[in-house]
Order: sequence, then structure tokens, then C-alpha cells
Amino acid sequence: MTEKFLLNSPTAERLYHEYAENLPIIDYHNHISAADVASNKRFRSITEMWVSADPYKHRLMRISGIPEHFITGDASDLEKFEKFASVFPYLGGTPVYEWSLLELRRMFGIDDMPSRDNAIYLYDKMNEMLSSPEFRTQGLLSRFGVEYQSPVASLTDTLDSFDGVNIAPSLRGDNLLLPSAELISQLERQTASRITDINEYISAVDKRIGEFCSKGCRFADHALDDGFSYIPDDGENGDRFKRSLASPLTGEDKNALASELLRRLAPIYARRDMTLLLHMGAKRETSDRLRALAGPVGGYAAIGRTPTPTDVTNMLGDFERLGGLPKTLLFPLNMSDMPALAALGGSFSEDGVGGKIQLGPAWWWCDHPYGIRSALEAQSSFGILAEFIGMTTDSRSILSFARHEYFRRIFCSYLAELAEAGRAPDDMDILSEIVRRVCYSNAKKRI
Amino acid sequence: MTEKFLLNSPTAERLYHEYAENLPIIDYHNHISAADVASNKRFRSITEMWVSADPYKHRLMRISGIPEHFITGDASDLEKFEKFASVFPYLGGTPVYEWSLLELRRMFGIDDMPSRDNAIYLYDKMNEMLSSPEFRTQGLLSRFGVEYQSPVASLTDTLDSFDGVNIAPSLRGDNLLLPSAELISQLERQTASRITDINEYISAVDKRIGEFCSKGCRFADHALDDGFSYIPDDGENGDRFKRSLASPLTGEDKNALASELLRRLAPIYARRDMTLLLHMGAKRETSDRLRALAGPVGGYAAIGRTPTPTDVTNMLGDFERLGGLPKTLLFPLNMSDMPALAALGGSFSEDGVGGKIQLGPAWWWCDHPYGIRSALEAQSSFGILAEFIGMTTDSRSILSFARHEYFRRIFCSYLAELAEAGRAPDDMDILSEIVRRVCYSNAKKRI
Amino acid sequence: MTEKFLLNSPTAERLYHEYAENLPIIDYHNHISAADVASNKRFRSITEMWVSADPYKHRLMRISGIPEHFITGDASDLEKFEKFASVFPYLGGTPVYEWSLLELRRMFGIDDMPSRDNAIYLYDKMNEMLSSPEFRTQGLLSRFGVEYQSPVASLTDTLDSFDGVNIAPSLRGDNLLLPSAELISQLERQTASRITDINEYISAVDKRIGEFCSKGCRFADHALDDGFSYIPDDGENGDRFKRSLASPLTGEDKNALASELLRRLAPIYARRDMTLLLHMGAKRETSDRLRALAGPVGGYAAIGRTPTPTDVTNMLGDFERLGGLPKTLLFPLNMSDMPALAALGGSFSEDGVGGKIQLGPAWWWCDHPYGIRSALEAQSSFGILAEFIGMTTDSRSILSFARHEYFRRIFCSYLAELAEAGRAPDDMDILSEIVRRVCYSNAKKRI
Repeated sequence: MTEKFLLNSPTAERLYHEYAENLPIIDYHNHISAADVASNKRFRSITEMWVSADPYKHRLMRISGIPEHFITGDASDLEKFEKFASVFPYLGGTPVYEWSLLELRRMFGIDDMPSRDNAIYLYDKMNEMLSSPEFRTQGLLSRFGVEYQSPVASLTDTLDSFDGVNIAPSLRGDNLLLPSAELISQLERQTASRITDINEYISAVDKRIGEFCSKGCRFADHALDDGFSYIPDDGENGDRFKRSLASPLTGEDKNALASELLRRLAPIYARRDMTLLLHMGAKRETSDRLRALAGPVGGYAAIGRTPTPTDVTNMLGDFERLGGLPKTLLFPLNMSDMPALAALGGSFSEDGVGGKIQLGPAWWWCDHPYGIRSALEAQSSFGILAEFIGMTTDSRSILSFARHEYFRRIFCSYLAELAEAGRAPDDMDILSEIVRRVCYSNAKKRI
Repeated sequence: MTEKFLLNSPTAERLYHEYAENLPIIDYHNHISAADVASNKRFRSITEMWVSADPYKHRLMRISGIPEHFITGDASDLEKFEKFASVFPYLGGTPVYEWSLLELRRMFGIDDMPSRDNAIYLYDKMNEMLSSPEFRTQGLLSRFGVEYQSPVASLTDTLDSFDGVNIAPSLRGDNLLLPSAELISQLERQTASRITDINEYISAVDKRIGEFCSKGCRFADHALDDGFSYIPDDGENGDRFKRSLASPLTGEDKNALASELLRRLAPIYARRDMTLLLHMGAKRETSDRLRALAGPVGGYAAIGRTPTPTDVTNMLGDFERLGGLPKTLLFPLNMSDMPALAALGGSFSEDGVGGKIQLGPAWWWCDHPYGIRSALEAQSSFGILAEFIGMTTDSRSILSFARHEYFRRIFCSYLAELAEAGRAPDDMDILSEIVRRVCYSNAKKRI
Repeated sequence: MTEKFLLNSPTAERLYHEYAENLPIIDYHNHISAADVASNKRFRSITEMWVSADPYKHRLMRISGIPEHFITGDASDLEKFEKFASVFPYLGGTPVYEWSLLELRRMFGIDDMPSRDNAIYLYDKMNEMLSSPEFRTQGLLSRFGVEYQSPVASLTDTLDSFDGVNIAPSLRGDNLLLPSAELISQLERQTASRITDINEYISAVDKRIGEFCSKGCRFADHALDDGFSYIPDDGENGDRFKRSLASPLTGEDKNALASELLRRLAPIYARRDMTLLLHMGAKRETSDRLRALAGPVGGYAAIGRTPTPTDVTNMLGDFERLGGLPKTLLFPLNMSDMPALAALGGSFSEDGVGGKIQLGPAWWWCDHPYGIRSALEAQSSFGILAEFIGMTTDSRSILSFARHEYFRRIFCSYLAELAEAGRAPDDMDILSEIVRRVCYSNAKKRI
């Protein structure tokens, strides 16, 4: 890996090194443990920090045929590290190959490619480094230049770990659309209210969102997984809500109530000037075997059905009509849905708000040059590249902030190509302003 | 912008400058006002001609956060122009950026990039030019080299404006599939017939199509919008037609009748040797707010559901079986549907007719290098590039004929890449013949 | 065509010429006539061998407007050859253009591009060569370097032609999912058993699969055509099977029984360590006219609906849960489905098995640089490139083994690009090992 990594022209190099490289990081949605940040955690081993914390690596180890024992099983940290290193040279082309090399180089100063041969050497060398303050969570965040990050928290989670200066919670709203008895009773306790119908539920949720906002929360995320479809109001959702308190809804009843709750929550997000993230199309039920071995978020999720662009359009239209359409980022897990969803940016607008509805950065399994490039092409061709909110990691691993560098390099190459083809101004003032917007200030103005 | 704009190799430059550049334009489907052409309209201001007439620009102004007042509202022409110019430098990557620069250069001789700084200067300078005959509609058409264009007209529209030598109507058939009482009575009047059942309706339509054909009409267009699905004949459509005269059909009844009417119209188009255009997957209901502010065709349509390739195949199969399959161009609005639809060209054929069923050029929101390139890849990989009918603007703006240059440059670059990779003959006679076919004669032989 | 054909960098040239070029061919799924191989067939004319045997060429002749008489009709071999040659120069961009030139060069030593002008010359020259042993089937296979090939055979087909050293049958399982009375009675005879219910049917099928395996069979293929959807067990399939013996099932009953039979067959394939191929989304009913003229496999099939990734995931999940998930290759006919299906490789795994579930190579109408590149991008971005099983022709034409060269050139260019961008190790030992795996040993270890 050289300093030209992913930079495919002199203009790209200049845009990256002179403008993008040193911009602070705004990571507006991730799954970092806020408690680990607050406690300035020291990692037990490089395996804990770098391998076990990263389901993307688990996935590739599985595809390589490594037994689960060495991935999420009882093998030792050293054994797990060795197994990962042993297949590493053959991971070329995957984003994990590139992320890993970036992480080693930027945080550990290591230029070696992991392999069977150097596994023990690297394991010992990296473990040794972990005792230094630079490798505790706060040291890493500081070295990555993280100005702001927003790990997710569910509505009733404690927010005690979110008192730091560079951190704020983002609301993970998934369980709000299928309220369980447990959620209701926690919420009643936290908001000192009684919840017997949908209106009282929404009031309590709104009140608790206010507490999130007082901690700096600016983003709410809802996963519209495989199986979700948007159902317009039929007047029965008050009743469905009450029935759901007795026993969980299924099928279309479940989708109808979830759609209604989204219609109720969207105006709250709009009123509070929050940005809504819609993560669409994950299929989390795949292999029972892996679920049993690796737990519910073990990295084996699949790409299911994205809500149709028609559904999404009708949903945003209802939000707008019925109370308030918040700024919204659309994250399809199926790359083929990017063009249609990117075009929605031109279908809803708000005076004075740039990029109100837009495609989010390439999400999850799509976070590689193929997906990132597709997202940039879609954003640029069906929307406006300069309005793009740019990267967030959505990651569980503290080392993943290296992916901002990865994104920025790909972005600078793409923008340089446009300029060199006469498709964007060949003017460094304008190009650098676009770099600054996409890599920093478009996200910054949302926080 | 240089003369190499979008030309990525010496072969591409040669193909474009020696062969493509000076070919006349055949624009077989657009929304230009035939009345404005017939009257040789003089535009009030550059805003009227260049900004207000172009919903693509409205769309980008909205995404940029410009208040609707300055887009379709009551702001002055100067204010609207200024607002557009002020965001222009940040539109790089969008097709509007490139189209605009081409339009300025080719028609106005202006090489400046619009911006906040030069907005008033450009506004005054361009307005001044409009008084010259060269900037009236006929002057523009002549300077663009438009040999033939075919603006759409609905079946009962007057054809008085279509007497010019370089113009003919193309039939916009949308309202034929859902005949309103008003359409029926107009048609009865125009054809001096009585319409009480589906057969009489089709006879009257056929008669009126004959009048279109006597004006040179060679193309019929049907929009199969989001919500359309193809329904085979169930023997109930005579009855559905009668019911539709009393009150509009909805849901599957509506789709069933529309499918039947397509089955009745297709043989008429085939018999008259017309080419059928199917524009598929537009979702026109999006933001109520924008509909109220900007009207029904305000540029905020979204990309909805394309009829499935299965539906389209069954439909073309029924046409063929039941009376006549016309030459057909398929225009999906979702780029992801291009490969499957392009492959249909190999599934239906007619002795002596090249490219009988084929993908049309990248349509509407897909008309940018990303979409054009995808359409070329699909046409070339699943069909035959040399049979491709090539570009039409489908535009409302008289300046849009510049997009033929845009298309031709991208096409020449693509063809040159094929030749340089050994994927097409490295023989200028053959390559130039392919250029001529795609940029001119394949469309010419359809008119 | 030069030796650099499709090789876009010095690294690509080195990878191809030093490593890929001379690897033997493993063609694990095709439609070559095993009888023609066993009999060492001599072809009547170059038309029989090269034009009539290849529905891809028929398809392009149709798109070119050549009358069916000269494609599958009664025209003479010379006339058919002339017609194909006459349009050949205008087929640039199609894979047939490139395949044809490769076939001419590699097998016939001919560098001329076919055209109207040289058609008779080429026809005579090539016909003359056919009398040499090198142009009989076994001579061709030997010259192509085919180490192993696996033509399909249906379960009750004779396996007499599969006694050669470089050949084994692969099971074409399509008719097993909709067992006809004829199939049942053949199977009863072949296995000396009685079949009155689904369990007896599966036992007989398993027994007969054992006979395939004794001939070296390692692969089973099922076509999940347009119209198929996966239906979980509802306990009614024993009954459905019995009803199907009386009269063929339709609609959802048909899909339910097909799904159940897949659930019964998958564990058999898994137990016997066979690899399952799922060919998904072909739509075989298109033009009645062409069906009447060209027969049921006349090259006019279309791209229909691929089973949704959700369906495929649920199906594989059921296989795993209910008895055994075999190694599986997924072949979508719609390129847009590649990313979602490629991601499934990370959702199911088996200790010790690399690339257990993976995208197959670009299939049928997708077998061109656009499709191959998309499949490589998907495999590399959502899976692991080094685990990719690589090319198989799936072809009916004995000359199609040239497509392995085609694939290998595109693959080497892609891998070289990764290395040059810093996305794969810039280390010839590792790169050449990846070349060897993908072009040879990953397939070899499945046989």
C-alpha cells in the first residue's frame, strides 16, 4: 500500500492530500460501545480489538472454510489471530483486505501483510502496543481525528455514557415499531406516564426522545428489514396497537402498525430537526446453525428485499402530508436499488434545505469500492454530489474509523475523474469546497 | 469544456469529429411545443427559454435547497436566473451541468461557467441575443441540424402545427388506455362515428391514427406507469369497457382493460408500420406539496416499479400471437431493469427487420453518462449495438437538442473502447458505418 | 485480435500468459453431446459445427433481421454460413463476435474476420479442415486442453456414453421436480422398485443418483425458472405428490411440491458431496412463432424473474435445518440479482469448506465482459475472489471451450487491476496462486 492507494490521478492525489486527508471525522451512525469509550477501555488482546470485534472478518473466515471454533468459538485469542492471518493474503478484492491494511498502518505503524508466516510475530508486537494509552478507546478516537460520533442507543437504554464532548447518542428506533410489554413498562417508568393507547405511547416516546436530544441526539434510525412493506392508514391502528399490547402482531397487521408508528414518529423527528436514517432490506434470519454458534448479530445476515421505491415514495409522501417529513437518508442493502432511491431526492424538497432526502453512503455489505462507487454514481447522476452527506462507519469496531480514509480516497478519485472529463469544474477552489462538504461539513451541519 | 469533452481516446475523437459530429438530428420523440415551432416563437427571456422550460433544472434547484418561489413561483426572471447560476458550480456530476455548458457554447457562443458572480452579466448578454432570428425556435432547430423531430400529440389534439417539413406528430397514447367520457365524445366528433363498445372505440381510434399518419406520424408512445401490470385476456374486457364509460375503473379492472386496449392497438401500429415506445415505471404521485406548487409535470416524478420482464414478455408474446407485434422500444426508468429488457431483443424477431424489439436510449432521469453507458452496455451485450436506434431527447426544452452531441460523444467513446480492446473491428469503414447507423440512419429508416 | 486481447495491463498479460493460459480446462456443466464425444463425431460442415450448433448465433442473426429460413430453416449450409458472415462485422460488442474470432484462431488458425466478401472462401477452407482427426470431437477436446467435462444427463437417460476418461455426467434435475408418469415408470424399471408415494420416489431417485455417481457424477443442476417461488413445507406434499401422479399440478401446488422435492434432494446431494447448481430466472415461453420455427431450445428464451434473495435464503436455510445443505452455486439470469445472491456466501458456511455457497460464473445471456465483470465484482466484493469456482461453458457447441480463454483473460485483467490499485497483494506468488485456484483448482477439487 502506497500513499497513492485508491487515488487514480494527480488531481485525485491533490484533492485527497491537500484537502480531504486532514478533515476531522464526523461519524453520525455507528455501533461503538459508548461505555467502552467512557471507560477508556484497554483491550485484552489484538484479537479482541481487531478480529473478534469485527463480524466482517468472521464472515470472510467462514467463506474461507475456517472452522467456527476459530471464529466465534472457544479457540484462544492467538489461535483465532493465526487463522485470520493465514487466509489474509487470499482476501484481496474484499474490503476487509484493504481496511485491515489501513488499520495496521495508520494505528499500529505496521506495513506488513498478515500471513501464516508472520502471525505470531504480529500478534505479539500488536498486543504489546495495546498497553499504551494511544491504543485505549479514547486514544484511538483522538488519533483518528474523530470530532463527533453518534453510537446508537435504544430508547430505554441508559444514556450515562454519552456525556463526553465528542459523542452523542443516535436513536435506534427498531423496537419502537413493535413495542413489547417490556418496552412499554420501561417507558412508563422512565417517563412517569401511563401507556394504554397509541397516543399515550407516542407522547411517552416523544418525551424520552427529548431526553435523547438533551444529550445531543440528532439522528434516528429505523431498520426496514426484509418482510416490511409500507401500509397506508386504514383507521385500524389504534386498535392494532391495543391488540399488540396483549400479544405480538404478525404479518400484515405487524406491517400496518409499524407503518402507522413511522407516520407518528416522522413528524417528531422533523419537529426536532433530526435526520431519519432508513436502513432497508436486511434479512437477519439465515443459517440456524450460525445463529446458534455466533449469536443474533454474528455477521451472517443476508441481503433481502428492500421496500420498493414505490413504497418508500408513498411513505415519504404520507409523512409530508400528515405532519412532517424529516431530512431522510436512504440505505438500501441491495445495490441494485440505489438508482431508484437516489432519484427520490428530486421528488421531495424543503425551502432552504439542501439534500433533504438522499441516498446514504454504501451500507454494510455494500461498503467496498464497488458499492461506494455505485452510490457515488447514483448520488451524482440522480441527485447532486456536492449535497451528499458522506461517510459513516455503522461499525462495531473502534478501528473502523479508518474507513473514512478509504471513503475519502475513493471519493477524491471519483471527483477528480469528473473534473478531468469536463463533468465538474476544473477549478481547485470549487473542487476543494465539494471535498470539504462531502467529507465534513454536510454531516457537520446535521449535528 | 474542450473539444475532447467526453471523448476518452484518439479513436473516439476521430469517430466523433470525422463521422458523428455533423450528422443531422432525428429526434423521434419529444415534448417540444409544435405550436411554438410553427409560430417561430421568440422567447421573452433566457429564463423562459433555458430555466423555466426545463424541469431537470427545477429538480436540481430543489435539491440545492433553493426556495420554490425562485423555481416555479412568482420570483422575477432575473431572480430565477440568479438562483440557478448561484448553485451551478456545485452541480458537477449531474447531466444538467454538462448539458448547460453545451447549450451555452453551441447556441450562445458562451464559454463561461454560470455562477453567482457572472449571473447578471450572462442574463443581460443572453437576453440581448434572443431578439435575433437565430434564437427563435426555427433558428435554433436549424442551427442544431434537426432534420426531423416528432413532438407528441394526444389523439384528439389538433394537428395544425404539424405542417412543417421537419416535423411530424408522434402519438401519445396514454389517455387511450383509460378512455374518459370527454375523449370518447371528442373522438366521436372527430371521426363522425358513434362509440358504444370496445370495437367501435378501436375503429374510431384507428381512423384517427390514420389522420396522424397522414401528417407523417411514425411513432406511438404508451406510458406504463408504476401500478401497471399486464393482465391476459379473460373475456371480460368488452364489459369492462362499457363499465368504464359510466365510471372510471380502478385497480385490476383498470389494468385489465388497459392491457386489452394495448392488445387491440398493437396490431394497428404493426399494420401501419409504426414503432411503439413503451415508457415504463414512472411514479408521478410523490409530493403533494410540489404538485400544488409546481403543477402535475413539475419535475418531481420518481422512479417506481417497471413492469416485470415477465409481464413485458407475455405482453409482446400476446401481441405477436393475437394480431401483430409492432417494432417496439423499451424504456425502463429504473436502470437495474435494463439488462433483462435488453435481452428481449433476441426473443422476438421478424424476417427482414433489424432490431425489431430493443432497449431505447437511457430515459429521463437516466439520461446521464451513468445511464447512457449502462444502456449501451446492455444493448451491446444482450443485443447488437449496430442495431441501436440511438438518441431522442424526450425533452420539453428547445435547447435540449444539444443532448444529441452529448450522446454521440459518449457513444463514440464507448465504440472506440470496444475497438481498442479487440471487441469490435479495428476498421474505420466498419466503425464509421456503425456510428452512422446509431447516430442517424437506424432512426431515419423508422420515419 | 492480438495476444493482448482483453488484457489491459502488463500485470494482466503476465498473469495470463505465464499462469492462466496453459492450465487444463475443467468444464463442470455443459450441454455437449456425450454421444458425439464417445463416437468421435466428424462434422458434416462448418455450418453444422459452428453456426447451427450455437443458439447464441441464431439469436444475433434474428436481431440482425436475417430471415428464419437462413437460421433454423431449410436453407443450405452454405447459405446459412453466408448470412452469418455477412452480418459478422456489425456484431462488435457482442460476445459472439469475440468468441467466434477466438474459435477461428485457436482451432482453425484463421485470423480473418468473417464477412460477406470472404464467406465462400472461409466456408470451403474450414470445411476442408473438418476431415482431419483434429476436428473431430475428441481432437477438439484434446486441443482445447479439456481435462474434465461434465455434460448434463437427465436421471433416466442412458449413461453409456460416459465411459471416457475425461468425461462424467452431471445430473440435470429439472424433470425430477415435476415427475411425469413416464419418468416414474422409467425410474421404476431402472431401479426395480415401485413408486406409490413421495418417499418411494425419493428412494428410487437416490438409487439412480448412485448410478450417476458411479459414473463420476459430481454436480446436480436444477433450473428455477420464471414462475418458481419457494414454498415452505405445509405438510401437504405427500398428498400433492400422489395427486401429481394422476394429473400435473399447476400454480402454487406445483411450486409447493417442487420446493418439497428440492428439500428432499438437497440432503442427498450433500451426503454424496455433490455440488448443486441453481440456474434461476429463465423465461422459456416467449415467441410462439419462434417456438414453432426453431423448437423449444431455439435460443429465444428471455430473462424472467429470479427467485428473490429472500426465497433463496429461506430455501438454503431449510436445506441446512432439515437434513443437509450441499455446496451450492447460484446462477441468476438477471445481472441485477448478482450482488444480493453473492452476499449469501457469508450467510451459510461449513467448517473446512471454502466457498460453500457462491455465485456461479456469469450465466447464458450474461456471459460477456459486462456480465463476467459484474460477477467478478460481486464475488470479490461480497465474497472472496480466491474461492470462486470459475468458468464453465454451459454450452451446446464443442467449440465453446474457447470461452475459458475469454474468461481467463477477463479474470486476469480484473485481478491485475486489484493488485495495481493496492487492493490485492502485489506479489506474483500469491496472485498466481489465485489464478490457479480460480481457473483450475477450485473446480478441480469439486470433481
